[in-house]
Amino acid sequence: MLVRQSSPSQHTTVTIAGVPVGGPSMVVIAGPCAAESETQLRTVAECLTRLDIRLLRAGVYKPRTSPYSFQGLQDEGLQLLHDIKRAYGLGIVSEVMSVAHLERACEVFDCFQVGSRNMQNFELLKALGQVRKPVLLKRGLAATIEELLGAAEYILAGGNQQVILCERGIRSFDPSTRNVLDLGAVALLKRLTHLPVIVDPSHATGRRELVIPAARAAVAVGADGLIVECHPVPQQSVSDAAQALSLDELEQLVCETARVAQAVGRQLPCPVERAA
Amino acid sequence: MLVRQSSPSQHTTVTIAGVPVGGPSMVVIAGPCAAESETQLRTVAECLTRLDIRLLRAGVYKPRTSPYSFQGLQDEGLQLLHDIKRAYGLGIVSEVMSVAHLERACEVFDCFQVGSRNMQNFELLKALGQVRKPVLLKRGLAATIEELLGAAEYILAGGNQQVILCERGIRSFDPSTRNVLDLGAVALLKRLTHLPVIVDPSHATGRRELVIPAARAAVAVGADGLIVECHPVPQQSVSDAAQALSLDELEQLVCETARVAQAVGRQLPCPVERAA
Amino acid sequence: MLVRQSSPSQHTTVTIAGVPVGGPSMVVIAGPCAAESETQLRTVAECLTRLDIRLLRAGVYKPRTSPYSFQGLQDEGLQLLHDIKRAYGLGIVSEVMSVAHLERACEVFDCFQVGSRNMQNFELLKALGQVRKPVLLKRGLAATIEELLGAAEYILAGGNQQVILCERGIRSFDPSTRNVLDLGAVALLKRLTHLPVIVDPSHATGRRELVIPAARAAVAVGADGLIVECHPVPQQSVSDAAQALSLDELEQLVCETARVAQAVGRQLPCPVERAA
Amino acid sequence: MLVRQSSPSQHTTVTIAGVPVGGPSMVVIAGPCAAESETQLRTVAECLTRLDIRLLRAGVYKPRTSPYSFQGLQDEGLQLLHDIKRAYGLGIVSEVMSVAHLERACEVFDCFQVGSRNMQNFELLKALGQVRKPVLLKRGLAATIEELLGAAEYILAGGNQQVILCERGIRSFDPSTRNVLDLGAVALLKRLTHLPVIVDPSHATGRRELVIPAARAAVAVGADGLIVECHPVPQQSVSDAAQALSLDELEQLVCETARVAQAVGRQLPCPVERAA
Repeated sequence: MLVRQSSPSQHTTVTIAGVPVGGPSMVVIAGPCAAESETQLRTVAECLTRLDIRLLRAGVYKPRTSPYSFQGLQDEGLQLLHDIKRAYGLGIVSEVMSVAHLERACEVFDCFQVGSRNMQNFELLKALGQVRKPVLLKRGLAATIEELLGAAEYILAGGNQQVILCERGIRSFDPSTRNVLDLGAVALLKRLTHLPVIVDPSHATGRRELVIPAARAAVAVGADGLIVECHPVPQQSVSDAAQALSLDELEQLVCETARVAQAVGRQLPCPVERAA
Repeated sequence: MLVRQSSPSQHTTVTIAGVPVGGPSMVVIAGPCAAESETQLRTVAECLTRLDIRLLRAGVYKPRTSPYSFQGLQDEGLQLLHDIKRAYGLGIVSEVMSVAHLERACEVFDCFQVGSRNMQNFELLKALGQVRKPVLLKRGLAATIEELLGAAEYILAGGNQQVILCERGIRSFDPSTRNVLDLGAVALLKRLTHLPVIVDPSHATGRRELVIPAARAAVAVGADGLIVECHPVPQQSVSDAAQALSLDELEQLVCETARVAQAVGRQLPCPVERAA
Repeated sequence: MLVRQSSPSQHTTVTIAGVPVGGPSMVVIAGPCAAESETQLRTVAECLTRLDIRLLRAGVYKPRTSPYSFQGLQDEGLQLLHDIKRAYGLGIVSEVMSVAHLERACEVFDCFQVGSRNMQNFELLKALGQVRKPVLLKRGLAATIEELLGAAEYILAGGNQQVILCERGIRSFDPSTRNVLDLGAVALLKRLTHLPVIVDPSHATGRRELVIPAARAAVAVGADGLIVECHPVPQQSVSDAAQALSLDELEQLVCETARVAQAVGRQLPCPVERAA
Repeated sequence: MLVRQSSPSQHTTVTIAGVPVGGPSMVVIAGPCAAESETQLRTVAECLTRLDIRLLRAGVYKPRTSPYSFQGLQDEGLQLLHDIKRAYGLGIVSEVMSVAHLERACEVFDCFQVGSRNMQNFELLKALGQVRKPVLLKRGLAATIEELLGAAEYILAGGNQQVILCERGIRSFDPSTRNVLDLGAVALLKRLTHLPVIVDPSHATGRRELVIPAARAAVAVGADGLIVECHPVPQQSVSDAAQALSLDELEQLVCETARVAQAVGRQLPCPVERAA
C-alpha cells in the first residue's frame, strides 16, 4: 500500500498554500465551524494573522443530521471565502461532500476536507485522487485504523499524494464528551504511514473547556498539527457552539501548545511570547 | 419530521416491482453479495423463483475498504442484472454509491440501496429524494436511531416517500461476530416511524451459522422483512464468503422464518410446506 | 475448557427449585427489580402462580451507581423472600455481590445471580464454584463472549456445573435504548457451550414498550428462557421503573413468547390460551 | 457528592508512602505486571531507585480471563514484596480483588489498587472506605465518568478520603490497540473532582511502542501521574508482555515526560538530565 512507511524515517510533507504540514513545525488550522458573514470571517482572519496562523477553516457545505438544519452558505460562502482569502492571504481548508462541490470550490479552497461521514464515500475519494490539491481526510466516527488507511489509499492510488489524516474522536458509550479522542491511534498512525497526521480537539471533545488540554495532549503524542474551531462570539455560532473557542482562548491554545511542541522537539511559534 | 408516525397505526407500504414491503406479508430479498457471472445469477434466480422470493439483491458497485479489492462488475454487472431481470421477472435491489450510479442504474434497479458507509452521504440522499423509485436505506455502522431517521428525512423532504429502513448490525467491541444485530432498534423504529423496517442478518452477524437464528429473531421482533446473502457455492463468493448462505440454507431460512412470521401474525409463504 | 460443547448435541440442563433450564421447555423468571414490601411480593407471586411461572426474581442486595441510592432491603428482604417462597412454593433467583451475601442467602435463594458488574469478580466466582446451587451468570456490559465463557469456567473449574448464562445487553453509542441486546451472541453461545443461555429483555432495552418484542426475538433466536422485570405498579418501582412490565403486560409477554416458542420447537405454556 | 470539587481550586493531595500524588510534582508508579521472582523485583527496584521513582507496582493477585492462566504468586508474592519494600524503601501499589486480600495485604501494600473489572465491586469499595490507606481506583472498561465518580464516592462515603482515580483505556471497536486511551475524560475529571487523576498508558494502548507517546500525552493533558508496566526482559513477562517497557525504555519515558511536565507547569525530575 502506498500509504505505508517504507522506513521509519519516511515522512511526507504536504504543503497547503505555502504552509508545510508534516515537517518540523506544527501547523494550526483554525476558524469557525461555518462561514456565516463577512464580519465574522474578517474578525477571525485578523486574529489568525495576529497569531501567525496562516490556514483558515470555515465550512460552506455543512453535513447536518437533519435536512432542516443550516446547510452552510454554499455559493454565498464561497464568495465570502474568496474575498477573505484575497484580503488576508490565508490558505483555505474546507469540506466538500460531493464531486459537484469539488468543481465549484476548486478555485477557492486550498485543501479539500473530507468529513467523518464521507470517509468511505469512495466515489468522492476517487475524484480527489484526480485533483492536484491537498486533501484533509478525517477519520470516520467508527472507522478502524485499517479503514482510515484504506480510504487514504483510494486517493493515493488515484495519483494524488497530498493527503493529511485527521483524528477527530470516535464514538463511545460515554455521553460526557461528544466523542473520544483516540491519541493512541495517532501514535500508531505515525508508525504505520508516512502521511502527516493532525488532530481536531474540538469535535473530539465537543466541550470548549476541554479543547485546550486535548490540544496539548495531541501535540505531546506526536501529531503534526491541529484543526480547531473558534468564533468571535462562540455562543452565537450557528453550529457547534458548545465546542468553539473564543479568540482569546485560541490565543491561549497557541501559547500552551507551543510550549508542549518545544518539549517534544517540534516548533510552533507563540506570537505573544515572541512579542514579550 | 415526515418520517415520524402521526399515529401508532400509520404504516407506509413501499412497493418494489410489485412486491409490497411493510404490509401484512413479510418480504425476503435474497441474492449474492456481488453479481459475478450469468451462471451464478441464473442459479440464484432459479432458486428464488422456486422459493417464491421475488426480489433479487446483487451488487455491481461494491464499496470496499481497499481500492485494490474487487469493486464490482459495474457496467458488465448492470447488463447481467438487466438480462436476469427480463428472464425471471425478479425485482432488482442493488447499491448505488454516487449520483452517477443512479443515472446509469435507473433502468435496471427497482430499488436503490444506500449502504452503511453512505448513510450520511447527504448529496446522494438529496438526489434520491428526486427519483421516483424506492430506496433501501441501511443504518450506518455507528449511527444512532436519530441519525438514521434524519438521513431518511433527507429523502422524504426531497419528495420521495418510498423509503425502507434497514438494520444491519452496529460496531462493537466483540470480535466474535462481525457486527452486533440491534433488534431493540428495530422494535423502537417501528414505534417511531411509519416507514417499513427490514433486517440484514448476513452483515449483522458475518457468520453463516448465525444467519438463520438471527433472521428468526428479526421476524419475531417485528421486522417487515429480510435481506439475505446467498450464493450457489458460498466459499467461492468473491466477497463476504463467510456470511453467504448456500441455496439449501436459504430454503431452510424461509421455512423457519415462515413459522415465526405466523406466530407473530405475519405471512411468509414457505413453498416447501405448501407443496407438502 | 469445561464450558465448551464436546459435540453439537451436548446440552446441560440446570434445575432451579425443580424447574429445568436448558431442556425442551422455555423458562420464564419474573419479578420486581427489588423486593420492596410483603404486599408487592404477594401481588407478584399471585400473578406468577396464575401464569404458571415458578421462578421469582427480586433483588435484596442492589448494586447501584451511587452509594446514596436504595441498596436493597438486605436482611429484611431476605426474610420477605423466605416467607413468600414458603407461601407460594416459588423458586427464588436473586443477586449476590460478595461471599458474605452467599453465606447469608444460602437458605433462601435457589439460584445465585451474578450481576453484570461482577461478571469478572473472580473471588466471587471461585466461591460459587464451591456451592451446590445453580448460578445465573450475567454478561458484563462490555464483556466479550470469550470473557463470559472464561468467567463461567471459573465456576465450573471449582466443581459447580450448574451455570446458566445470561445476555442482558451491552454498552453502545446510542442513547435511545439503555443497552443493545446482542442476540447474535446468544446464537453463538448456543454453538460454543453446552450451558443454558437465557436473555434479560428488560435491562437489554430499558424501555417497557420494547421488552415484549425483545422477548419474542430472544425466544426465536434460540434462548432457553427469559428473566423479566415486572411490578404491580411499574411507575412506583424504586429502581428501573422505566423498564418494568405491569402484570398485565407480563401475561401478554408469556402469551406472545409462547407462540414463538412453539414456532421454533420449544414449549412454553400460555395459561390464558390453555384456559380458553 | 464528596468527590465533587467545591471550587475549581480544590485539589486533594493523596500521599502514598511519603510520596504526594496530586500536588505540583507528577508521580510515576512503575513495575512489572506481576511479581515473578526476587531477581526480577530487585532488578526493577534498582532501576526505579536510579530513576528516582519511589513507588513500585507489582501484582500478586492477578485477575485473569481464564482460571487456568497464572493467577499471581499470592502469599509468596506478598513475602517478596515485603522484602523488596524493606530493602529499597519503595512504596508498594498493588491490586486487591476481595476483602480477604485486603486483610492479608494490609501490612505490605501502601496503596490498594482496585482493577477495572472490580470498579463496581461495591462490597470491596465499601470495605476500602473503612481502611486508612490510599486507594487507586481504575476506571472500568466501559464505565462512564459518572459511574467512576460514583464508585469513588462509595469509598469516600465510608470515611476514606485518600482516593486516586486512574484512566486506563476503554473498550472500543478497533482491534489495532488493546483499548482506547480517553484523555478527554482525564481533562473532564480534573474539572469535576478534587481527587488526583493518573493514567495507565500501558493497558490503554497494549503496545510497547505506543506507551511513551501516550505517557507524554497524559502529562500534557493534565494528569497527576502515570502508572507504567516495565520488566527487566519484557518478552519474558508472564503476563502483558506486549505492553511492558524495558528498563531502558522506562528511563526514556521519564526523561520525555519530564520535559512535557515542565512545559505544562508540573515537575518531574529526570535523573539523567540532572546528572548531566
